[in-house]
Amino acid sequence: MKHKRSSTYLTTISWENDCVKLIDQTKLPEDLEVITCSTYLEVAEAIKRLAIRGAPAIGVAAAMGLALCAVKSSSSTKSKLMNDLKTAYQVLLETRPTAINLKWGLDMIIDEALKYDTIEEIKRNTVLCAIKMSEEDIATNKKLGRFGSYLINDGDVVMTHCNAGALATVSYGTALGVIRSVKESGKKISVIATETRPVMQGSRLTAFELVHDDIDVSLIPDTAVGHLMANKMIDKVIVGADRILRTGHVYNKIGTYQVALLSKSHGIPFYVAAPLSTFDLKNNISDIVIEERSVEEVIKIGDKRIAPTGVRIFNPAFDLTPPELIAGIITEKGVITAPYERNLTNLFNNEIKQTVSTHHSGKKI
Amino acid sequence: MKHKRSSTYLTTISWENDCVKLIDQTKLPEDLEVITCSTYLEVAEAIKRLAIRGAPAIGVAAAMGLALCAVKSSSSTKSKLMNDLKTAYQVLLETRPTAINLKWGLDMIIDEALKYDTIEEIKRNTVLCAIKMSEEDIATNKKLGRFGSYLINDGDVVMTHCNAGALATVSYGTALGVIRSVKESGKKISVIATETRPVMQGSRLTAFELVHDDIDVSLIPDTAVGHLMANKMIDKVIVGADRILRTGHVYNKIGTYQVALLSKSHGIPFYVAAPLSTFDLKNNISDIVIEERSVEEVIKIGDKRIAPTGVRIFNPAFDLTPPELIAGIITEKGVITAPYERNLTNLFNNEIKQTVSTHHSGKKI
Repeated sequence: MKHKRSSTYLTTISWENDCVKLIDQTKLPEDLEVITCSTYLEVAEAIKRLAIRGAPAIGVAAAMGLALCAVKSSSSTKSKLMNDLKTAYQVLLETRPTAINLKWGLDMIIDEALKYDTIEEIKRNTVLCAIKMSEEDIATNKKLGRFGSYLINDGDVVMTHCNAGALATVSYGTALGVIRSVKESGKKISVIATETRPVMQGSRLTAFELVHDDIDVSLIPDTAVGHLMANKMIDKVIVGADRILRTGHVYNKIGTYQVALLSKSHGIPFYVAAPLSTFDLKNNISDIVIEERSVEEVIKIGDKRIAPTGVRIFNPAFDLTPPELIAGIITEKGVITAPYERNLTNLFNNEIKQTVSTHHSGKKI
Repeated sequence: MKHKRSSTYLTTISWENDCVKLIDQTKLPEDLEVITCSTYLEVAEAIKRLAIRGAPAIGVAAAMGLALCAVKSSSSTKSKLMNDLKTAYQVLLETRPTAINLKWGLDMIIDEALKYDTIEEIKRNTVLCAIKMSEEDIATNKKLGRFGSYLINDGDVVMTHCNAGALATVSYGTALGVIRSVKESGKKISVIATETRPVMQGSRLTAFELVHDDIDVSLIPDTAVGHLMANKMIDKVIVGADRILRTGHVYNKIGTYQVALLSKSHGIPFYVAAPLSTFDLKNNISDIVIEERSVEEVIKIGDKRIAPTGVRIFNPAFDLTPPELIAGIITEKGVITAPYERNLTNLFNNEIKQTVSTHHSGKKI
C-alpha cells in the first residue's frame, strides 16, 4: 500500500482506524511503503527490525503500540487490562535498549491509563494520549527547528550524521527540522549527509527525505568527513540524539563521537538537536547499555557478501559524545550551552515548576 | 581459473608465459579468481577497474604491462618499439592519478629499455626487469615488516585502514607486512580492520587475507573508529600510503586523515608503512591530483541501490595526512621520524650515494 501524504513533509507514523501505520524504512530509498500494525507485537517487531527508528519516532511508536494493546484488549476488568499493558510495556521496552524516548513514550501511556477507572475510559484516553504525543512531536520539532535556525547563517553548508529527520520523528525532524526551518526562513542552506554505515540511514533516509523536500543535499562516505572539514567545505554540524544525560553527554548513532571530535579539531561548531523527551536526568554513563547489533548488518549489503567467512565483527549501534565537544544542544525550549549540568538542571527545574503551576492554576504561565 | 599459491601468503600478480596473471580483487571475498592479461591494454583496464589496486601492486602491474607491450610488439626497429612503449606508458600512467608507484614502475622499464640496442635485448631485459621488481617488492616488504615489528608490543591490538596487505603489493604487504612480521617473531597480535567505504577494501581484502593467513582480525564500520579508541581498544595504528612527499605529507585512502587525527587525539601512535618507491621528493601538495571516483561506488552495493535518485555525491578516493599526525614512517631502510623533511632528505641522499658508489665500485657498500 502506498503512503498518502497529508502535508509537504513525510509523516513517519500515524494512528488510523485503531491501527498504527508507519513507513517501512527498510524499503527506502527504493520504495516508499506503509505497513499497518494492528497489534502491539507487530509494532514491537517493526521497531526491532528498524522499519521505524529514530529516538522520537520510536517513542511515539511505543506509545501507539501500548495504546493498541489497550484498545484491542478483551480484558473485562481494569486490573486485567493493566496487566495486559504491563506485559506489552515490557515487550516494547525491550525492543531497543539505548534511546530513552522509548521508555518516555511508554510511561506517558501508563500514567494516562492510571488516571481512569473504566476500561472504556482507559481505551479512549490512551489512544487520545498517543495521538496527542504524535501531534506534539511535530509542534516540538518546529519550535526546536526555529531556535536552531538562528544558529545558521545564510549560505552555510551543514553536515549531519545518520538520520534525525522527518523519518526519525513523526514528521519535520530534529536536526533536519533545523534545516527545514532555515529553508523556510528564506536563508540558503546546503546539507552534507554522511552515509552512516552500517545501516546507511544517511544515504537511505536523510538523502531521500531532503531530495523529497527539494533541499540541496550531497552524500559522502563516512571516511570523507575529515577530508571535507580540512578543505573547509563544512560550516556547521547538527545531529540528533538517542539519549542525553544531565551532564550533557550525548548518546547517538555510532560515528557521532568521531564527527564531533573532528569538528572540534577543525573549529567547526557541533550542535545536537533533540526534544526534552530525549533527556535522561536520572542515569549515569555506567547505567547505559550501548546496543550491539547483528553482524549481518556489516557482513552483507542486500544479497552481496562484503566480508569473508570467519571474521569477527564489532557492531556497536551508538557511541557517547562528551559535552566538551558540543557547541550547543537545541531543544524546543531554546539552545542550551555549557556548563550543561547547571543549565540543564535550571531548564528542567523551570519545566517542573511550570507544570506544577499549570496543574494548580489550571492555565499555562 | 583458480589461483595457485607458491607460498603461504597470497601472490597478487605474477609473470607467466609472457602473460600477466593477477587476482581479480573485485571478486573478493567471495571468489579467489585469477585473470590473465596478454596485452598492456588489459593490464590498464584491470588497474582502472580496481581488479588490482594498492600503490606497490599497481607499480609492478604497470611495469609488467609495459614489458608486455615490449614483448608483444611487432615493431622491427628500436625507435618503433620505443614509440610503442611511449604510447603504452601514457595509457598505463593515466589509469590512476594519485599513487606515485605507477610512474615509478613505468620509468624503471623505460630506463631499462633505453640501455639496450637490439629489439631482442629490450624485450628480454624489460621482462627480466619487471620480474625482478616483483621479487624486490616482496623482499622490500619483508625488510620493512621487520623494522615495523619492533614498534609493536606483545599482545598489541593494531588498527589498519583500507588494504596495505599482500593484495596491495606483490605479496606480504606493507602495513600488513608489519603485522605478518610481528606474528612470525612469535609476538601475539590482533588486528582491527575498518571496512573502508566506499570500495570496502577493509572488509573485502584486509579481513579476507588475514583470515586466509589465520591472523586474528575483527572488522568494524568506519564509523566505529572513534568509539573503539575512546574505549582503549586500540594500541597502535598502521596504514599504507599511495604517495609521500618530502615534507612527510602522506596521500592514502580516503579516511586515513581522520583516523590519524583521531589517533593523535587519543594518544595512539599512528604509523605509515611504505617502500621508498612510494616517496615523491619532487612535487608539492599543489601538484597532486586527488582522484574523484565514480558516484556508482557510493550509490549502489552489488545490485542494491542505497542512495536515492537525484542526490549529489562526493567520492574522493584519497586524502592527505600531515606529518604532525604521524609517529613514524616505516620503510625498508628503517623507521623515519620527525623532522621528516630533514630525515627523508638525509635518507635519500645516502641512497643516492650508495647507488653511485655501487655503480662505481661494482659492489654494495
